[in-house]
Amino acid sequence: MERKALIEAVRTQMPERRWQHTEGVMQTSIVLARRFGAEPERAELAAILHDVAKFWPVERMREAIVEENRYTDVLAYDKELWHAHAGAYAAGRDYDVRDPEVLDAIRYHTSGRERMSLLERVVWLADLIEPGRNFPGVEQIRTLAEHDLRGALIEGFDTTIAYLLAKKKRIYPLTVLARNDLMTEGG
Amino acid sequence: MERKALIEAVRTQMPERRWQHTEGVMQTSIVLARRFGAEPERAELAAILHDVAKFWPVERMREAIVEENRYTDVLAYDKELWHAHAGAYAAGRDYDVRDPEVLDAIRYHTSGRERMSLLERVVWLADLIEPGRNFPGVEQIRTLAEHDLRGALIEGFDTTIAYLLAKKKRIYPLTVLARNDLMTEGG
Repeated sequence: MERKALIEAVRTQMPERRWQHTEGVMQTSIVLARRFGAEPERAELAAILHDVAKFWPVERMREAIVEENRYTDVLAYDKELWHAHAGAYAAGRDYDVRDPEVLDAIRYHTSGRERMSLLERVVWLADLIEPGRNFPGVEQIRTLAEHDLRGALIEGFDTTIAYLLAKKKRIYPLTVLARNDLMTEGG
Repeated sequence: MERKALIEAVRTQMPERRWQHTEGVMQTSIVLARRFGAEPERAELAAILHDVAKFWPVERMREAIVEENRYTDVLAYDKELWHAHAGAYAAGRDYDVRDPEVLDAIRYHTSGRERMSLLERVVWLADLIEPGRNFPGVEQIRTLAEHDLRGALIEGFDTTIAYLLAKKKRIYPLTVLARNDLMTEGG
């Protein structure tokens, strides 16, 4: 699908406020991709589609995950994680995205995972720090993101896990593995 | 081994200060066992032995874990976790403990795990809140432990994970699974 048509198609899938978030992620993904040596076009493509399933009814997300039949373990965890898998599946099925790295950047944009690719890191971080985001600690992560992608990711995962603890929500083990893995990589 | 002889044997394995901690865990394990319906004698036995390997040289812990050959995945994680596995193995090999629930209470007294037995919960919590412990939040956990074993454990795991985040240490996935599992149990 041509870029402009894709943007229009995805835009109709969400409220205007969420689309503004998506535009922020697109912009920040391009900046981070250029800064850290990923391909800006692929980063932007993943960003456009990352929340395409965010406003689907929960049952539609569940059906997509069951239909894809490869990542059903996520169904035992917080629904917040489902839209990323449903979105990756929809990107391939409904929007003709064939690039597996782009699909994985969509799929893991919420949970992260071990051995994240550069593209996955860029999109994960862009989703967290795009200009519309405002939470305690975001400025520190933005400052790290100016020169230290790994450091910004670790800080971002720590903030995410601390938030889940404070909210008494369950923590997806893959998110912890993502953080551990980044720490093991060394400086 | 007779109780008094066991206590003398274990006491020689650690500095006096750590033995005082062990006495605190023994005392608190008995109180919690009585309060929540576990067997005080088994709780005390696990408490006596829980830190028996704490002051072993790291290489000796590693050798015990390799020799036991069932829990070697822990070797990829923080050494803080090793003494619990080495201790469980030593309890069976050197101190004639045959009770599998007591051995598991020793084995999981640091990490916790999914589907913890009542005995494991009592010893895990006693280790965290015995009278010698002093950290931010311990009083809140002690208060919960007066009537709500599960609530005290969740708060204890949350405090432990938050500490690991703040110290930029790796988080053992089993610890997260233990916490998630307790939260899923419901009130």
